[in-house]
Amino acid sequence: MRGAVLHAPGDIRVEERPDPIIEHPTDAIIRLSATCICGSDLWPYRGEFDGQPAPMGHEYCGIVEAVGADVTSIRAGQFVIGSFFASDNTCEICRSGYQSSCVHREPLGAIGTQAEYARIPLADGTLVATPEVPDPSLIPSFLAASDVLGTGWFGAVAAEVGPGKTIVVVGDGAVGLHGVLAASQLGAERIIVMSRHETRQKLALDYGATDVVEERADEGAARIKDLTNGLGAHSTIEAVGTRESMMQAVGATRPGGHIGYVGVTHGELPGQDLFFSHTHLHGGPAPVRRFLPDLIERISTGAIDPGKVFDLTLPLADAAEGYRAMDERRAIKTLLTV
Amino acid sequence: MRGAVLHAPGDIRVEERPDPIIEHPTDAIIRLSATCICGSDLWPYRGEFDGQPAPMGHEYCGIVEAVGADVTSIRAGQFVIGSFFASDNTCEICRSGYQSSCVHREPLGAIGTQAEYARIPLADGTLVATPEVPDPSLIPSFLAASDVLGTGWFGAVAAEVGPGKTIVVVGDGAVGLHGVLAASQLGAERIIVMSRHETRQKLALDYGATDVVEERADEGAARIKDLTNGLGAHSTIEAVGTRESMMQAVGATRPGGHIGYVGVTHGELPGQDLFFSHTHLHGGPAPVRRFLPDLIERISTGAIDPGKVFDLTLPLADAAEGYRAMDERRAIKTLLTV
Repeated sequence: MRGAVLHAPGDIRVEERPDPIIEHPTDAIIRLSATCICGSDLWPYRGEFDGQPAPMGHEYCGIVEAVGADVTSIRAGQFVIGSFFASDNTCEICRSGYQSSCVHREPLGAIGTQAEYARIPLADGTLVATPEVPDPSLIPSFLAASDVLGTGWFGAVAAEVGPGKTIVVVGDGAVGLHGVLAASQLGAERIIVMSRHETRQKLALDYGATDVVEERADEGAARIKDLTNGLGAHSTIEAVGTRESMMQAVGATRPGGHIGYVGVTHGELPGQDLFFSHTHLHGGPAPVRRFLPDLIERISTGAIDPGKVFDLTLPLADAAEGYRAMDERRAIKTLLTV
Repeated sequence: MRGAVLHAPGDIRVEERPDPIIEHPTDAIIRLSATCICGSDLWPYRGEFDGQPAPMGHEYCGIVEAVGADVTSIRAGQFVIGSFFASDNTCEICRSGYQSSCVHREPLGAIGTQAEYARIPLADGTLVATPEVPDPSLIPSFLAASDVLGTGWFGAVAAEVGPGKTIVVVGDGAVGLHGVLAASQLGAERIIVMSRHETRQKLALDYGATDVVEERADEGAARIKDLTNGLGAHSTIEAVGTRESMMQAVGATRPGGHIGYVGVTHGELPGQDLFFSHTHLHGGPAPVRRFLPDLIERISTGAIDPGKVFDLTLPLADAAEGYRAMDERRAIKTLLTV
């Protein structure tokens, strides 16, 4: 099969890779209906690279081709969506809603779903099937549910978004934009997105944002205070992952408020500033599996259209251009047709 | 009046200070029934000193001597307890339970309660009176409520301690020990205290701890995993405030678990380790005022005896020896009679 492989920073090649096979009786093999490039794929693309050629991609949806002997709830022919961590969905950690820290978790990133086929471990626990094979027009939205929608949703839930609350979203990438969408769906009263990119501002407003703040860092946090009677937001979704963005989130949040942080945090954070902020911090790799049944329902009924986030569609063969477009911020998110 | 003043690291002197007066119509003046030395007083004592002689102390209980013209709920002759931050108890932040981040807060540490008298700002919002002047035997317990009990209690509440849960307490100082007491009162099933000091272990067991772990850092976290089916604690109270103790708490807590951190955090924390821990973090300066009515009730009825934490009692005049004993860990906490 064909699949995308990172050979060095900036060097993505679509090349022949071995067809995946059932390796464990709990595996499934899926034929990708579409795949895509994640903001987190840009970290190795930009230099966090260990020197070994690496298959890329961890977002996926598609048709089940085959299942292992122990798979009972998933069968060939179904359209399925899964998260970027395979999970058994039965251990104590999964049952508490943290499937991305499942005691048996396996990262799909090590498998590489920017490809024609993929082996999905722990298929019963990982995959959620739609009631029927969906209309192709819904595929971008189901693909978004695999990570960026589910991650934005977790950011909103971790930030305890709810009715009557003022929400700030730090980061206008695909995850931040879906944090806006989640906040809107979860009933937030006011949603302030911090963005200085016009196309992203427009999508944020379309997803339910009520205010845009263009200032950043201390100036941005001060602007949020101005908009909230000097107190700060009730809830902030942090969807970038730098020290600067985290401290912008902390500065924008009122004492006793909640920060949901879902950008993979890089660098060190100042303990004393966190301490005196009096905020709640919760985040980490989103347990997308927790939210998938609800997200599939919302997409199927047309309540949400997260597929809008894909503003560039290319064939898998042109993955390298998809990476370049995201790296240069010409595209929010690239869908790759298979 | 007489009061303790830090002149340089290690140099505490009890000397003549001006008698406090009503400066604002919302002030009260109290005559201290007793005062004490806090673990956090050791930070400047050990070197975090800005060069200016500083009145010391922020814990207090005593008899109201006088109140300002605008004080309506507190009156002369009452026995009162307050927190180390004065608060109006009416602003939006106070009403949400975060009185130590009140928009009008004032730190009692700047006033210095290791003295015969103290001016308490925002008396109506800050002070809680007991129904009657208590028996002198209860004064150590009421004094403990002013900070270390209230802070340990907040640590437990921030860590979402509750029935059926396994709790870890990092730190066997006065705050950690009261975290144990709070966890016990709040119905925790199992309380593991991390301590290698025999007298502190004994008090922890007396306060309700069920297990003692002597290992520290990664080894300590691994021991906690051994005791919890490899998963980690549901809730951890961090009561030290170093990077090492924070990461010990993170390592001891399961994904989705809660950490209540109430040691003033010093230094930097590794963002990626926090992210992948999947824990909830909440803490900061304890909003003791939130808990005071409940704590006063529990002390008055004999349900708890937090005064046991004072294992050294000295007259105010001997404050310097009280600091030395705590600095050298000869005493857990020093009560100063006035």
